[in-house]
This record gives sequence, structure tokens and C-alpha cells, in this order.
Amino acid sequence: MPSYLLTIAYDGTPFHGWQRQDGFDTVQERLESAFATILGESTAVHGAGRTDAGVHALRQCAHVQIPKAFACNVLQRALNGNLPDAIVVRAVREVPARFHARFDAIGKRYAYRFWCSPQRPVLGLERFCWVKRPLHLDPMRRAARALLGTHDFASFATNPGYVRKRGTVRTISALRLVRRPHGIDLVIQGNGFLYNMVRTIAGTLLAVGLGKLPEAAVAEILAARDRKQAGTNCEAHGLYLVRVLYPDSALRAALGPKPRPESC
Amino acid sequence: MPSYLLTIAYDGTPFHGWQRQDGFDTVQERLESAFATILGESTAVHGAGRTDAGVHALRQCAHVQIPKAFACNVLQRALNGNLPDAIVVRAVREVPARFHARFDAIGKRYAYRFWCSPQRPVLGLERFCWVKRPLHLDPMRRAARALLGTHDFASFATNPGYVRKRGTVRTISALRLVRRPHGIDLVIQGNGFLYNMVRTIAGTLLAVGLGKLPEAAVAEILAARDRKQAGTNCEAHGLYLVRVLYPDSALRAALGPKPRPESC
Repeated sequence: MPSYLLTIAYDGTPFHGWQRQDGFDTVQERLESAFATILGESTAVHGAGRTDAGVHALRQCAHVQIPKAFACNVLQRALNGNLPDAIVVRAVREVPARFHARFDAIGKRYAYRFWCSPQRPVLGLERFCWVKRPLHLDPMRRAARALLGTHDFASFATNPGYVRKRGTVRTISALRLVRRPHGIDLVIQGNGFLYNMVRTIAGTLLAVGLGKLPEAAVAEILAARDRKQAGTNCEAHGLYLVRVLYPDSALRAALGPKPRPESC
Repeated sequence: MPSYLLTIAYDGTPFHGWQRQDGFDTVQERLESAFATILGESTAVHGAGRTDAGVHALRQCAHVQIPKAFACNVLQRALNGNLPDAIVVRAVREVPARFHARFDAIGKRYAYRFWCSPQRPVLGLERFCWVKRPLHLDPMRRAARALLGTHDFASFATNPGYVRKRGTVRTISALRLVRRPHGIDLVIQGNGFLYNMVRTIAGTLLAVGLGKLPEAAVAEILAARDRKQAGTNCEAHGLYLVRVLYPDSALRAALGPKPRPESC
């Protein structure tokens, strides 16, 4: 059975997050419905990770194994024709049968978009985290340095069950704060994120930027390994899953010498 | 009675355009309701111009004459506290009693945002005009040159009643096509626009960019002074009223030597 890797963008606003839940409209359920329409049978869509209700994705990834082979561009068009406006399949590529969107992922990149203005963002209220008071970028940047590298991020995790299972050590390979016309973007990349970790890091750095928390406190919170020390979580609707990272070997093993750039 | 000039941004999506119409939700009506709440009496809000249903505004302007004097920032906060999320008053400044938002305007700037991709813009479906096929920018730019300057724009106007009243000669002082990460922005500035003129110009240039219309045809359409010659109108939801231009003299006549920059 051929396997395909889907790259998916969505507006998180109308959905109850990624993961299928009975009685709720979710992105995974919409994708599985599209496959059911196309194939006439139920198909499991395996995401690289969940996103919470309201969180957007620019390049979420998921794989499917289906009984019928398709040209990638044909499958992409068929899916987009059966998805709601708020979800789009940006790319489809064939992958080895052993490829798994979640287990093969070696990292993820997220972005928080802060709208910095006393006035609300009327064009994009669901696209930004609105910060009404001025943010001081330099202390945020200095504080963020403490989070770079490999650490125990227990102070920034919410779900203890998840924490027990896989431990709380993660590696943050990049954390940038970029000034933009609308305010500030926080871009964070790591080999994995604990539940709510991005939202808690964003909330804690925001507290530093607003002068509510001294910049040195971030390193202390990290060292404390206690969730109660960190700031409050940022709202979901300013958060974007930007991309999922895979090693070339996982993707290329079963592809021919040249991928088809026009469709994948 | 003191007069105030309001600078207003709005998301046009939920509204039936700017102008008050019985039984429809409009931006003007929402502003007048906010004044009614604040002042306890009905107040006419005079816009610099109408925008159609679905058209957005970054800096629409309007004036009011009200029986009570306010500090500009106090009036701004009171209005924003009584407006829906999709409308925001970005600035309030005091103006001479003879100032009129519409009759004193000497020009307007609009922008069309084209999302150029075979895939729909899931994050901002109501913010872009979606162009599925590749746009060729150079012929669009060359064709646009014919529209710069003072011309009879009858070929680009829809409403004959309006046309008869004020004539169809207008001056386009700037028309730029700018490549952006999302596609192309068309920015157009002039001393006034006939009804649907921006949407018809955008639709005609789009036809050139798509190869449906030769670039030389734009000058011929202009010369023909016949609406039937031009392309179809672009959709409302990619269009933004960017700003309204006033001569300094109209704004400054009754202000003190220094405006209050913190509130106006």
C-alpha cells in the first residue's frame, strides 16, 4: 500500500484542534472525511503532532497509507476539493511505507505573532496575540538565551502524565524574537515540545517584555523544574505550527533519484 | 460645537459596507450607535466616502460635530469601548468646525491584495483576492502606465447617475504593482474614484497579467470611454481603503500651534 506525506495549512479558528474527537469539528476528522469521500473507505490520517483549538498551521505534516496509488498532484487536488476553506493541502509526496509522520519527526518550528498596539487588530483578531502595552524586546532576547540548548523543561510543561512517559528534557535549537510591522514574532524550534511548552515559554517571555518579570528569572524558572514558577500561557490564536522537520533519509529512502518538484 | 476627525480601521467582512442602510449592519451605523451611547443623543458621522460590502479600511476618515468637548484620547477610548471587534478608531483629532471629511478630501489611496497561488489562502480568505493562475507582472506594469495622470475614466465607472453629476475625469497620481510574499499588491492613489473604478481597474489589469487581455488594450479601453470594454470587477474582499488625503490647511486652520501627538 502506497504511503503519502501531506503538508497541510489551516486556520485553527473554526476547529477544535487537530485531533479527532467525537462531536467536535477537528482538522484530522476533516482530512479523514476527505479521504473517505475519495476512496470510499475510512482512512486513518496520522499527524506529526496535535495542535490545540485555535492554533494555526502553516505546514503541519501527516501521513496516510492507502490502498490505491495516486499521482501526488491528483491526490492533492482531490483532497483540496473535499476540504473546507479553512484547510488546504499544500503538498503531497510519496514516502516509504515505514515512514511515520510523528515518529520520524526530528523537530518542529512554531511562531507566536504578537500584535503590539493599544488598539485591537481588526484585520486579524484571530491571527495575533494582542499585547496592549509596549513590549521591551532587549530583555526578552536576553532572557530567551537561557532556554537555548538541552534542558529539563518541566517548569514549562502542563501535563504530568505525558511528562512521566517521555521525560521532560528537550533541546531548543533556535529562539528568535523578530520585530515586525505588526509588533513582534517569536520563532522557536526544537526537537520536541512538552504539552503547552511553547505557550508557557511565550507567556513567560511576554511577562519579561512587559516588565512584570525580571529577565534573570527565566533561567531560575528553568532550573526550578516547577510549572508554578513560569508565567501564564499565551492565547492559542497567535500561535502557528510553522513546520515539521524530518531527516532526509526518512523521506528519501523509497523515492526515486529525483522527486517530482511540480507536485510534491 | 467642537468637530473631530476620526481615523478608522475595519474588517469589511461582517458589514454591509460603510453607509447606513435600514436593516443592515454597516460601519457608519455602528459608529453612530457608539456616539449615541456616549452622548445620549443621535449623532451623524460623515465619512470621507463609502466602501462596499466586504471592502476593508486601514484608515477611513470621518468627521462628527458634537455638543460636548472631549480630550481626543478620551473620546477614542470611549468609542473603541462601544464598537464591535471588527472596527477600531485609530486616531481622533480636533478639526475646524468648517472641516468636512468628504468635501475637504483631496485624494484617496486604495490597495488590492492578490494572493497568487493554486492553493487558497486559508489564513486570510477574506483578506485577499485569490488568483489561481500565475500573474505576469511586467505587462501589468506597462499597461498600468496608460492610466496614470488625468483622464476621462468613463470606461471604468459603473454608476451613470453619479457620472452625470460630477463628470468622469479623474487624476491617478500613483499606481504601483508590488511583489509580496503572498503575491502582488496593487496600490492606487488618485484625487477621486468613480463608482467601482478601483475594482474595474484591478480586474482589467488582472486580465492583462493572466494573458487574457493584451497590454495595449488598457489604453484603448480608456480612450473608448465605454464601460463594456473593460474587464470584470475584482472581488470586494481583497480591497482596502488605505488612506484619505487632506490638505494640511483644512486640518490645521483651527488647531493650536502644536497638535497633541499622543492622542491625535
